[in-house]
Amino acid sequence: MPEISSTIDLVAGFQVAGVHAGLKKDGALDFSLVLSEVNCVTAGVFTRNKVKAAPVLLDMEKLAQNPEEIRAVATNTVSANACTGKIGLENARSTAAMVAAELSLSAEQVLVMSTGVIGTHLPMDKIARGVELASTGLGLDWRATAAAIMTTDTRPKLGSVQVETARGSYRIAGIVKGAGMIAPNMATMLSVIVTDAGLNLADAQDALRRAAQQSFNRIVVDGDTSTNDTVLMLSNGMSGVSVSTDDELGEFQDALDALTRYLAQEVVRDGEGVTKFVTLDVVNAASEVDAERIGQTIGASVLTKSAFYGSDANWGRIVAAAGRAGAAFDPDNTSLWVAAGEASSVEGRGLQIFGGGMPTDYQEADAAAIMAQPSIMFTLDCGIGECHATIWTCDISHEYISINGDYRS
Amino acid sequence: MPEISSTIDLVAGFQVAGVHAGLKKDGALDFSLVLSEVNCVTAGVFTRNKVKAAPVLLDMEKLAQNPEEIRAVATNTVSANACTGKIGLENARSTAAMVAAELSLSAEQVLVMSTGVIGTHLPMDKIARGVELASTGLGLDWRATAAAIMTTDTRPKLGSVQVETARGSYRIAGIVKGAGMIAPNMATMLSVIVTDAGLNLADAQDALRRAAQQSFNRIVVDGDTSTNDTVLMLSNGMSGVSVSTDDELGEFQDALDALTRYLAQEVVRDGEGVTKFVTLDVVNAASEVDAERIGQTIGASVLTKSAFYGSDANWGRIVAAAGRAGAAFDPDNTSLWVAAGEASSVEGRGLQIFGGGMPTDYQEADAAAIMAQPSIMFTLDCGIGECHATIWTCDISHEYISINGDYRS
Repeated sequence: MPEISSTIDLVAGFQVAGVHAGLKKDGALDFSLVLSEVNCVTAGVFTRNKVKAAPVLLDMEKLAQNPEEIRAVATNTVSANACTGKIGLENARSTAAMVAAELSLSAEQVLVMSTGVIGTHLPMDKIARGVELASTGLGLDWRATAAAIMTTDTRPKLGSVQVETARGSYRIAGIVKGAGMIAPNMATMLSVIVTDAGLNLADAQDALRRAAQQSFNRIVVDGDTSTNDTVLMLSNGMSGVSVSTDDELGEFQDALDALTRYLAQEVVRDGEGVTKFVTLDVVNAASEVDAERIGQTIGASVLTKSAFYGSDANWGRIVAAAGRAGAAFDPDNTSLWVAAGEASSVEGRGLQIFGGGMPTDYQEADAAAIMAQPSIMFTLDCGIGECHATIWTCDISHEYISINGDYRS
Repeated sequence: MPEISSTIDLVAGFQVAGVHAGLKKDGALDFSLVLSEVNCVTAGVFTRNKVKAAPVLLDMEKLAQNPEEIRAVATNTVSANACTGKIGLENARSTAAMVAAELSLSAEQVLVMSTGVIGTHLPMDKIARGVELASTGLGLDWRATAAAIMTTDTRPKLGSVQVETARGSYRIAGIVKGAGMIAPNMATMLSVIVTDAGLNLADAQDALRRAAQQSFNRIVVDGDTSTNDTVLMLSNGMSGVSVSTDDELGEFQDALDALTRYLAQEVVRDGEGVTKFVTLDVVNAASEVDAERIGQTIGASVLTKSAFYGSDANWGRIVAAAGRAGAAFDPDNTSLWVAAGEASSVEGRGLQIFGGGMPTDYQEADAAAIMAQPSIMFTLDCGIGECHATIWTCDISHEYISINGDYRS
């Protein structure tokens, strides 16, 4: 298993900056830039929502036309630049053009991302200030860069992995923002991943799609899907290590999978008002799609999430959610275990609380002691197939309602 | 429009009772019985959850075998008798048998419903006490009967409608319980509807299915689907008015539709922790299925519900939810209005807050004044077709989280 670091050292050829452009009121970092010295092969996955923000539409267009000459990604917070019409699209283009002008690039080489409130226009004077500050402040402060893409996130989320090969070593690193509005079955929240390994475009796109499917697409905070979700992966090859054979690609995929899983889990841990981190391991389902659907339905159930919050081992709500997931499911073949901790720390499956269509004769006090922990893992054995999927989710708290009742005001 | 009364007078041939069997701890009514003097043609719609409670399985079996000789429905609270295996099914059968013995019926003539916690066995001594008390206490106290099927409901929910025809008049009446765990795309919560009109079985089943589709299937409290949801309609013909021609059936359907809409809306109004009643009128969608899907996705969105709670006219979350509903949708063709009140009281569509892919230049203070009302209506014009659906939903509050974090303990 590749070892993930929670910091980012040099990734050859990449520089970054996170600055205060004046978008946030409290002086917090709010605008960021990621720059590569040389052209990058760039892959992207985007929200499947039919309401797509201007930066999403623009990046999709650029990656369709010019995916092998990308140099920079600029990200603003506070305004999502979604539902902003032609002006919004012009503002997204202007942002890219300003970055290009500052860094002597062409506008086609600059991608943009936005996060924040839907329906407000970008304040272009502040964006211009952010572009200027970030362009002149480039360095290696990835933590500040991760902080500068945060909205209601409580902490910067970043990670990296180094891959040693006989041909030399390369790195993959990423930053992510999440908090609320994280959902299954879509691209994901904002994330920029960079690597100094060299990949061709088809391999990069394939690797990113696979990685997102087993990480960002398997987390559930609230079941909502944003208009802005974007994951970009920029590969500049400056480590001198190229990744092209099946073995090399397999090694790269393992590292990228581990990194994206780490980043995705960080998003759940930092979800709005989250007090519990919950791993749902759905095993022996009829298909992987079924396993994923069952896990996501459980993870998105407000009733189940309320029970997590209340430290209630409410297997009834879990089994009932599985029963309405639209997947092959038979409660009489199903078993459910609960354990404290997560996949990496749990030995076996823990305490069995359901089997053969009925609760086991477990002691409620034993289950309550497990449920009181900050990290809980459920194993749901569907008993009808051989496929599995792991979903990471969280509880829903009073705090979540407060954050989202008040967010715009 | 048929006029709905919030009380129930005599429906010819039906008697009811709501009693305290000792299931609830505080002396509250917890067991009920509905009895017809003569055999009833009986229709039912049931949960689509693959995890079906014992009483659901039993009623489905009885209605498949013996749908024209039903006489009674017994309902217990506190235990859902779901995920209770063979013992659960035996207990459901025993309940019906005890009712039959008390009332000199055959067990095949008695249906049963349960609501409460999943996975606990029915306390058969208390059920026996309930059967005895209810059988000897039959009368016309429909309000007590509606109270005796409540769980976290805060008030009994009942209604009736009288239909005057040239052949005489008949009545349709119903009780319902709801609160949490109310979801789209399934049968519904517990409801018993009785009528002294005479219908044949196919017509009764068809009428109930149509009525449920435009009422119980169009409300969203939390998006979860119970293991026990059941709606039964018993027709005993004792008014002497039979309903069989197309015109007669149309008249009956109008009255039943109005009654079930009223009962369904009562469920939303009494949803767990609800502070706002929200009507979502989705118009000019590509199909009725699309309109329903869009309304239900908006209604089930925790982010949208949090905004309702915070009195925030967050059209961005509404449009974003519509965009991920899996329906044909184009934000550039979409318009959204908000008004205080509900369909019966709102003139026109109110304040337009979104159009042509962008927010209008409405004043936030005007929207806030509307959103502060206890009843709010949104009209979402999709601009791509001619179909519509109305969904009734509510906000999600701190109270909801408290109720569902603590429910079992």
